Amino acid sequence: MKRHGTRIQTVMAEIQARIASRTYTPGIRVPSVRAMAQAMQVSVSTVLEAYERLMAEGVLSARRGSGFYVAGPVAPLALTELGPRLDRDVDPLWISRQALETSSDALKPGCGWLPASWMFEAGMRKALRNVARSDTLQLAEYASPLGHPPLRQFLSRRLAGIGLQAPLEQIMLTESGTHAIDLICRFLLQPGDTVLVDDPCYFNFHALLKAHRVNIVGVRYTATGPDIDAFAAALLAHTPRLYITNSGIHNPTGASLSAVTAHRLLKLADSSSLVIVEDDIFGDFEHTPAPRLAAFDGLARVIQIGSFSKTVSASIRCGYIAARSEWIESLVDLKIATTFGGGRLAANIIHQAITDGGYRKHMESVRQRLAEAMDSTVARLQAIGIKPWRVPQAGMYTWCQLPEGKDAAALARACLSEGVVLAPGNAFSQSMTAGDFLRFNVAQSGDARIYEVLKRALGA
Amino acid sequence: MKRHGTRIQTVMAEIQARIASRTYTPGIRVPSVRAMAQAMQVSVSTVLEAYERLMAEGVLSARRGSGFYVAGPVAPLALTELGPRLDRDVDPLWISRQALETSSDALKPGCGWLPASWMFEAGMRKALRNVARSDTLQLAEYASPLGHPPLRQFLSRRLAGIGLQAPLEQIMLTESGTHAIDLICRFLLQPGDTVLVDDPCYFNFHALLKAHRVNIVGVRYTATGPDIDAFAAALLAHTPRLYITNSGIHNPTGASLSAVTAHRLLKLADSSSLVIVEDDIFGDFEHTPAPRLAAFDGLARVIQIGSFSKTVSASIRCGYIAARSEWIESLVDLKIATTFGGGRLAANIIHQAITDGGYRKHMESVRQRLAEAMDSTVARLQAIGIKPWRVPQAGMYTWCQLPEGKDAAALARACLSEGVVLAPGNAFSQSMTAGDFLRFNVAQSGDARIYEVLKRALGA
Repeated sequence: MKRHGTRIQTVMAEIQARIASRTYTPGIRVPSVRAMAQAMQVSVSTVLEAYERLMAEGVLSARRGSGFYVAGPVAPLALTELGPRLDRDVDPLWISRQALETSSDALKPGCGWLPASWMFEAGMRKALRNVARSDTLQLAEYASPLGHPPLRQFLSRRLAGIGLQAPLEQIMLTESGTHAIDLICRFLLQPGDTVLVDDPCYFNFHALLKAHRVNIVGVRYTATGPDIDAFAAALLAHTPRLYITNSGIHNPTGASLSAVTAHRLLKLADSSSLVIVEDDIFGDFEHTPAPRLAAFDGLARVIQIGSFSKTVSASIRCGYIAARSEWIESLVDLKIATTFGGGRLAANIIHQAITDGGYRKHMESVRQRLAEAMDSTVARLQAIGIKPWRVPQAGMYTWCQLPEGKDAAALARACLSEGVVLAPGNAFSQSMTAGDFLRFNVAQSGDARIYEVLKRALGA
Repeated sequence: MKRHGTRIQTVMAEIQARIASRTYTPGIRVPSVRAMAQAMQVSVSTVLEAYERLMAEGVLSARRGSGFYVAGPVAPLALTELGPRLDRDVDPLWISRQALETSSDALKPGCGWLPASWMFEAGMRKALRNVARSDTLQLAEYASPLGHPPLRQFLSRRLAGIGLQAPLEQIMLTESGTHAIDLICRFLLQPGDTVLVDDPCYFNFHALLKAHRVNIVGVRYTATGPDIDAFAAALLAHTPRLYITNSGIHNPTGASLSAVTAHRLLKLADSSSLVIVEDDIFGDFEHTPAPRLAAFDGLARVIQIGSFSKTVSASIRCGYIAARSEWIESLVDLKIATTFGGGRLAANIIHQAITDGGYRKHMESVRQRLAEAMDSTVARLQAIGIKPWRVPQAGMYTWCQLPEGKDAAALARACLSEGVVLAPGNAFSQSMTAGDFLRFNVAQSGDARIYEVLKRALGA
């Protein structure tokens, strides 16, 4: 028995030594029990016992069907420590926090939303005054599980306008667009599942998916949607559970999905169990509506989500999910379990604002202003050697390439010290191949000082 | 080799048979490799191989440091299918959905909140009118990552009032109290971890924890807090990561934590890595403040959360977390990743309402009304043979026992068909030992028809 005990400790010490020397890093699979037994000339039960003790100590962990792993950074879950550690400058959370934290007089061409002065302020004030006079239940009670019926009615009609039949019972309100995607991830994903995203994509998709401890695989994005060959290859190679994308106006490129890409993509998905989340948050910015995956698919495998934070107000939180009715049932349970009653007052205010006669006019004016800002921003960027990848048809984003040899993360660091918040490309890129790209928000790029700071930093 | 192969299959078949016969249900730990080898008279490596094949087939899963388990139902995550399947009547989600869905003229003594007419309606109307006149940023911009500073300032002062020093940087706003707990669970827990709850406890803790796929262990709740011996035993037996409780007024019993229990509980926790979440949602209902774990502990291992949905309005969503500063950092990242910017407008409205001179008067009147409603409800329940476990000092809940031989789930079903929503005891009980208990909300129990329906159903 003593010798058995000693042998166990030898195996344990060997594993510990390899971890200490960084030969084995967190997440790495250690040799199988059998292989280790052979390698160390001990019995299988010795190795098993050693591995079990290391599991008890939290050094190893086991995964269903695939053996023993060096325990990853365990709870507490620090998002900044999951996945390869990036420069904090291109960490997805860096841009969010910079944009949310920096004082309101900082210049924020990297920010993902419109300046407050472009939002539907008059409509919000009016909606708040109206809601102040609404009945007691509206003011004091929880929402029903699916959420404020008049807003769902409005959404059902709006979705019909883009060719999507979604009855009231298939629409659930959420606390935000991000919250909508988060609920869907909780519903569909388990740690270790694979999720496809566009490369580049909205950087917070990376942060959100990290929180679900899933594998993220990027698919190259083209001017008309994801690269179909790359998409087919990723489906085969990774059997992903989910694909998350923006149709309409794509973040960060400003590109739009074409009908032919939408059709091919759904045909490819036919032979898989893939679920697709279509984030339609920028729909109201379009001049001409692009195809929607959800409309082509009829809410079979596509779930559409959206919110009002980019058009009405970011200060009030409200989003939605449109999906198959049996999925909505489970999503409602999850919503109640994790946030309890939804924001009835928020939904009521949003509904008042968005059905206000002034909303359509407000959005017309926003689209017009964005078109003008797009032209002037692109011209000013080109003048200092920053080239747009494509000039988008609509929306607030332009995805731009730096002069050769320039690094966007270094530029972002330099500009931040002069009070300009940029959005460096690799925060959007799962493959980290966008190191010379930046996303500009044309609505936040009107100030001449931005170009002075950029020019100076590029010259340095 | 053939015999070894046959033996492996015998072990596999045995496990499969026990699962098929429901002897082993999802989440159950199967015998250790050693114990199974002894029981089936085969070698350890035979059992290991059998278990590994069952893991590869998704039948078993392994957890760090604690062996092999029958794999739970996999994604999609249907909360109603996690854990032992209950009567839908005592499913934690059943009460939530009944209370949230049933038309507002139904009688809801089982509901967990005040009637809308008891809420701070005048304050809400005034706050909405004020906010309608606030500046553009308040109306249109995202909140800062920690949330609306004036509300955090208010909370910091209020926490100081119960003996808890929490500077502004240690307070983060959330979308609700439930959202606060959910974020903490995401931060601290991994699937398979163990969490202690009070037995009985707020039923939505069960639903929320199921969504995190953790093991839930109940600790008997007494008139002065959790049973300290049971708590000590659970700490030893399960090395739980988290304990979630209400101090102040306990849901569903209405009991209050005593200073001696608080002190002993924290002393026990000293020799463990346990984190404690103290849900202080009912603090404003107390006549005399009970001890708070967070105040005794100084926010070392205790995290305090709360919200305003029980006192100001349930229609507007806003909660908070007070915790160690390094934990707040990670919680902010998680909040941004999963919900992005918080509800600035909601926090602003809540801050306006709660700092309104009328709020204190409003709460005084609510406490007075609750005290009267408690007396009359208890008297009326006793008249039909339903006995309070204890008569609470404050709050809206009384936890009551049915006459011998009566089943609360059956009673709930019978009363629902007559338009009365009850809260049967086992929804609150992890051990399912409260089958003859009901939680009554005295503020929702004023209507004489409730007692007629109850009496008839009890007589049947």
